[in-house]
Amino acid sequence: MSNAEVLSLTEPHIQDVVPCCPPLTERPMNAEEAERAARMFKALGDPVRLRLFSAVASHESGEACVCDISDVGVSQPTVSHHLKKLKEAGLLTSERRGTWVYYRVEPSVLAAMGKLLTTTPAAA
Amino acid sequence: MSNAEVLSLTEPHIQDVVPCCPPLTERPMNAEEAERAARMFKALGDPVRLRLFSAVASHESGEACVCDISDVGVSQPTVSHHLKKLKEAGLLTSERRGTWVYYRVEPSVLAAMGKLLTTTPAAA
Repeated sequence: MSNAEVLSLTEPHIQDVVPCCPPLTERPMNAEEAERAARMFKALGDPVRLRLFSAVASHESGEACVCDISDVGVSQPTVSHHLKKLKEAGLLTSERRGTWVYYRVEPSVLAAMGKLLTTTPAAA
Repeated sequence: MSNAEVLSLTEPHIQDVVPCCPPLTERPMNAEEAERAARMFKALGDPVRLRLFSAVASHESGEACVCDISDVGVSQPTVSHHLKKLKEAGLLTSERRGTWVYYRVEPSVLAAMGKLLTTTPAAA
């Protein structure tokens, strides 16, 4: 895979999401930071979306096609709807290869969200 | 402060939330885990709630009264409404002392959410 192809996995709106933000325990968030971070948390605030996200994130190579992850008890259109929401929130990227669209977790986004929830000594 | 007083900060519903769950990148979540974790993410999926949560989390000693954190541009009843939602999700505990109710971040919950977002080598 060429560098150009790798880069194409990172869609423009991802840039609006990362890097965000300081740990929640470090200082009060401002309005702009909260808007950006809340968008990511909201995307994970639905059980079906969270299961789909987890299914992609834990799949081999952190990548999965719809055919790999549809075992969550909802219809295929519902799966597609939730995957779209996760993409809009910048949590997943997608790439069509042949018949299937492959979804991949954006590791920098996951890392940024994890950092948000880091506890500092002051809050422990 | 006695041990009994410290323990009283931990309300019963917190027990329903923690420990939850394996890192999202470790294996697909089951329905029960997703229900529990989504509840926490959803609570942080609102910008005003996230700012309030961050204001409490970053306040001295990880504790704040409403008087300390009402500077987010919404009315006092709205602040109270959001703090209640954060309590219901198990993210905050509260304790009345004199005139004021003091809110505190439940560090174990924050740690559990941070663990959820840990990236494992398989997903990196």
